[in-house]
Amino acid sequence: MEKNASGMSLLSQIESPCQVKNFSLHQLQELAQEIRDRIITTVAQTGGHLAPSLGVVELSIALHYVFDAASDRIIWDVGHQAYAHKLLTGRQAQFSTLRQYGGLSGFPKRSESRYDAFGTGHSGTSISAALGMTVAQNLKQSPARAIAVIGDGSMTGGMAFEAMNHAGDLAKNLIIVLNDNEMSISPNVGAVSSLLSRKLSGKTIMYLKRGIEDFLRSVPGIGPNIVQILRRSVDSLISFFTPGMLFQAFEIHYIGPINGHRIDRLIETFQMARNVDGPVLIHVITQKGKGYGPAEKDPTSFHGLGAFDIATGKSLSSGKGLSYTKVFGLTMKKLADANPKLVGITAAMLQGTGLECFAETYPDRFFDVGIAEQHAVTFAAGLAAEGLKPVVAIYSTFMQRAYDQILHDVCLQNLPVVFALDRGGIVGDDGPTHHGVFDLSFLRTIPNMVLMSPKDENELQHMLKTALDYNGPAAVRYPRGNGLGVELDEELHSIPIGKGEVLREGKDVLIIAIGSTVSGAMEAATRLEADGIDAAVINARFVKPLDRDLILHWAEKTGRIISVEENVLQGGFGSAILELLQEESLFPKGFKRLGVPDEFLPQGPQALLRNLYGIDADAIENAAHQLLDSHHGKMLHAIGQTARR
Amino acid sequence: MEKNASGMSLLSQIESPCQVKNFSLHQLQELAQEIRDRIITTVAQTGGHLAPSLGVVELSIALHYVFDAASDRIIWDVGHQAYAHKLLTGRQAQFSTLRQYGGLSGFPKRSESRYDAFGTGHSGTSISAALGMTVAQNLKQSPARAIAVIGDGSMTGGMAFEAMNHAGDLAKNLIIVLNDNEMSISPNVGAVSSLLSRKLSGKTIMYLKRGIEDFLRSVPGIGPNIVQILRRSVDSLISFFTPGMLFQAFEIHYIGPINGHRIDRLIETFQMARNVDGPVLIHVITQKGKGYGPAEKDPTSFHGLGAFDIATGKSLSSGKGLSYTKVFGLTMKKLADANPKLVGITAAMLQGTGLECFAETYPDRFFDVGIAEQHAVTFAAGLAAEGLKPVVAIYSTFMQRAYDQILHDVCLQNLPVVFALDRGGIVGDDGPTHHGVFDLSFLRTIPNMVLMSPKDENELQHMLKTALDYNGPAAVRYPRGNGLGVELDEELHSIPIGKGEVLREGKDVLIIAIGSTVSGAMEAATRLEADGIDAAVINARFVKPLDRDLILHWAEKTGRIISVEENVLQGGFGSAILELLQEESLFPKGFKRLGVPDEFLPQGPQALLRNLYGIDADAIENAAHQLLDSHHGKMLHAIGQTARR
Repeated sequence: MEKNASGMSLLSQIESPCQVKNFSLHQLQELAQEIRDRIITTVAQTGGHLAPSLGVVELSIALHYVFDAASDRIIWDVGHQAYAHKLLTGRQAQFSTLRQYGGLSGFPKRSESRYDAFGTGHSGTSISAALGMTVAQNLKQSPARAIAVIGDGSMTGGMAFEAMNHAGDLAKNLIIVLNDNEMSISPNVGAVSSLLSRKLSGKTIMYLKRGIEDFLRSVPGIGPNIVQILRRSVDSLISFFTPGMLFQAFEIHYIGPINGHRIDRLIETFQMARNVDGPVLIHVITQKGKGYGPAEKDPTSFHGLGAFDIATGKSLSSGKGLSYTKVFGLTMKKLADANPKLVGITAAMLQGTGLECFAETYPDRFFDVGIAEQHAVTFAAGLAAEGLKPVVAIYSTFMQRAYDQILHDVCLQNLPVVFALDRGGIVGDDGPTHHGVFDLSFLRTIPNMVLMSPKDENELQHMLKTALDYNGPAAVRYPRGNGLGVELDEELHSIPIGKGEVLREGKDVLIIAIGSTVSGAMEAATRLEADGIDAAVINARFVKPLDRDLILHWAEKTGRIISVEENVLQGGFGSAILELLQEESLFPKGFKRLGVPDEFLPQGPQALLRNLYGIDADAIENAAHQLLDSHHGKMLHAIGQTARR
Repeated sequence: MEKNASGMSLLSQIESPCQVKNFSLHQLQELAQEIRDRIITTVAQTGGHLAPSLGVVELSIALHYVFDAASDRIIWDVGHQAYAHKLLTGRQAQFSTLRQYGGLSGFPKRSESRYDAFGTGHSGTSISAALGMTVAQNLKQSPARAIAVIGDGSMTGGMAFEAMNHAGDLAKNLIIVLNDNEMSISPNVGAVSSLLSRKLSGKTIMYLKRGIEDFLRSVPGIGPNIVQILRRSVDSLISFFTPGMLFQAFEIHYIGPINGHRIDRLIETFQMARNVDGPVLIHVITQKGKGYGPAEKDPTSFHGLGAFDIATGKSLSSGKGLSYTKVFGLTMKKLADANPKLVGITAAMLQGTGLECFAETYPDRFFDVGIAEQHAVTFAAGLAAEGLKPVVAIYSTFMQRAYDQILHDVCLQNLPVVFALDRGGIVGDDGPTHHGVFDLSFLRTIPNMVLMSPKDENELQHMLKTALDYNGPAAVRYPRGNGLGVELDEELHSIPIGKGEVLREGKDVLIIAIGSTVSGAMEAATRLEADGIDAAVINARFVKPLDRDLILHWAEKTGRIISVEENVLQGGFGSAILELLQEESLFPKGFKRLGVPDEFLPQGPQALLRNLYGIDADAIENAAHQLLDSHHGKMLHAIGQTARR
């Protein structure tokens, strides 16, 4: 790490972001290098979003140079690029705890720092939030500004357009920084992305601009209203040849493109933008992974990753076993081979969802719609309405974006769309913005939906086949990470809809588990056996429809029930079992529901969080002991009338 | 109604939409008049979406003239404008049953007609669905076309932009008809709307176009790549001065604007559009309410309405009592008078949510964001992060669009945003696309959310005050229609968070009701008293947090429980009570949950549907009798180990 005259690194001197204002350009450049080094050495140990954060080091410095983060609001869209911002805003000491349990969040977080103006994690929220803040500052007659820093990938999400439409209408002094690296996580898709790539040289632009202005001035016979429109338009007419056209349509002033690694140009531009009246967008071109060779070469792999060796860029994780994602991808390819009607859809997550092989083999049947989950689902509904079999592969947490489309466009019409929900349950280090722990609850409320979750990667295969064979909406939800290492059947088969399986018979207590919790249930049952407790275990397979007969049969046999799910306890799988028992007027002697409590879970290793929140074998074992040790649940007596028959 | 030579009306001769292809222009115009008359006379009796449907009569005829609805897919965005389409596609005989229970839907519905290619109801889905269908037809090598007919209001919704971005990228032969009436339900807002209003005359456009083309041809020193861009761009450069700019940015060919009441021009344009290669958008200008004076004058009131007198346009509904919407509006004004931090936000529903008076009094604190629910919520989060108190007023069914934003942007950050959910529960004639029966379930799953529902319009006032005083996310959900006619307290007060009230003590059975079901519970209790049954009634007020102590106390007292909610039974209010009892290991002698079953409810009068689906006083009374007449629920015995203590 470079040192300045005092022998201290520049970075280590920064306790408050306003200190960068006193640095020379040379010092700012030196600081950028120090920040880059610090990010690389830290993320090599902690894992994290390396390439996005390396891409915006100069951008972060320039923003803090021009704006005052103590009063101005810098909002980092998605937020996985905010590491330099964190280092500049008093969090150097804790930076080594990045993404660790109890440590710094990998995303901006209001409760972590006064400089994190708005918590982010999902795409496309920054313009809405920054506009809200701008309006609030206006109402408070404060001169503070709000700046949304949004990637070109996030720009394909609908809510960014909703926000730009409103921003253009309100005409407030909102600043949008478009961080264009031509990637979201996968390379970008869509017409907007193609538009953004229209980059003319400054000289050509000036020439065209002057010529067109001259011509327009010479047009005769245009009424005064038109002249006014023209006058307003001429200045940015040239933007027609540039990405500015899009933003001009929203009445947002466009500046750019700017080299996002030139601190001097960025500072100059931000200072200019500060004085623009009305909403302004600054188009900044950055390189994902900038300054670290392996990440520059392969920004997709270095988007988000675990610990790695700095010299080689090679992952340090042992990587035993196949991930659920990988098995999903293999199964999609296999199913597509046999079924020409199968089409695959993802929302900017080609690699993340494991669809590369499918996409390469069947490019005509693969659709990456960009970060646009709402469209992905209704687009799939359109395909299904014409007899195709679409599989929509989206992470559980992002599927929250399409709740209405799943309900209104797919399930209400009972269209056969398959939803593959990767990263269901606790995701680990990404934390509360990314845990997929609501899906069983929100999908279960929707009529016509079939909802299943596999106990292992082999069952995932069969469930995908099941969903594909089913003539209606069906969701398969599976966890982040590696499978159990079980063998994968060559031959795929359909599981009867709504049929669970008894994995273990027993008479003392019934453990009903779903998805990732089944293996813990079996482990708990083995341990309980050693204590002389005979536990039955059901792999429910289906959250909806429940296997009523199977559950009721074993509930009657054992009288005591434990349900386990990696999902919120409110309205989830365990509640579905409560509802079933209530409908049948059956009251067990004891019932424990294990799952995610009514709070947002923090970041941390999956196993740790499962243990802390009571969703693992330990918790199941304890629950069984409690049920058996305690007195029975209390049967409420009726003080009033008794049965009259 | 006009007759042709044979004495039969033209409309009555149409059994299949292809028949219009044989009509002369004069006959088509005559047909338009007949359709208009039929729509007016029918809607005057049934109620319905009059103004939107009157605006697209010629458009509907022209589409069926040029396209073949038996193979081509016409998708009506939102769908409330599809009455002419219904009359042209074999549904004349049933047209008088429009929006009645068991009758024709007020929206396109796949199960109703093969000519309804895609069911709609919520905004902005048509381009996604039509793109899916276009892709499917391509894969099937079918020449059939898909046409999305979308209003300028729907165009502000994010998913329309997501779909256009994908459409421009895929470059398939998708046809989009932009039905521009400068209104959604309220007059439109937003930059896009302002752009759409830039309407130059054809002559001016031609002149500008020629001039700019000449100039561009004369520009020297531009490399071949640029020339190619220019060549592609010149043809539509002129669109910079027109709304075309926006669609050009998405690489969608723009044609327009066209007078939407000139059948000849529409036919000519659609025929031309059919031959365009790649996605094309036709900008059609229509007048909402066209051909019916009162609706032309006041398209907002005639957007959707009940039965009315044709001669005067006056509503025939008796209109006794204040609606919940009206009380919400009055309360907002009152609260805003006292609290300068209160701001109001709606999504294109100024009148629908009752905010007119508030908006007029406090224009700086009122924001109509257009049909953009996602942005509305995150914009509110931004306002709240700066210390303001935003109230987001959106119908329950449309709030489904913002599930992720409520969870991720508001509740995760525990920001004090108030959600006013109008039209919660069964909405009546609009049917399954509009019933707001999922909100208690999907909002209850979210940590930090406070969720309440008032028993009457007076309690609505106090709950809004409560939500505003609370320093975190809070939702107030209330039904469509008139209140109970109770007196409104002058003074507003906060209800303690999570405190219900006992409305009636009793010992035989406990009825726990929420929101609109409380009055039915009281009525049932009165009737039960006549039968010698002593029912306790709790107005829960809060779905979250539940009043645990109160419920447990009365559950213990009575031993038998009935829960009632106008919400789906899966994961809803009743399930919350089940969860509470389970957590306390209490098992009642009997438990009945009344609510919406696991199916999409049809259209029909609210009272009828409440009766049919068992969510009214009759149902509660029956449930009480059943609980008291039957043997107790069965306590499961444990065949295995018993308590070891």
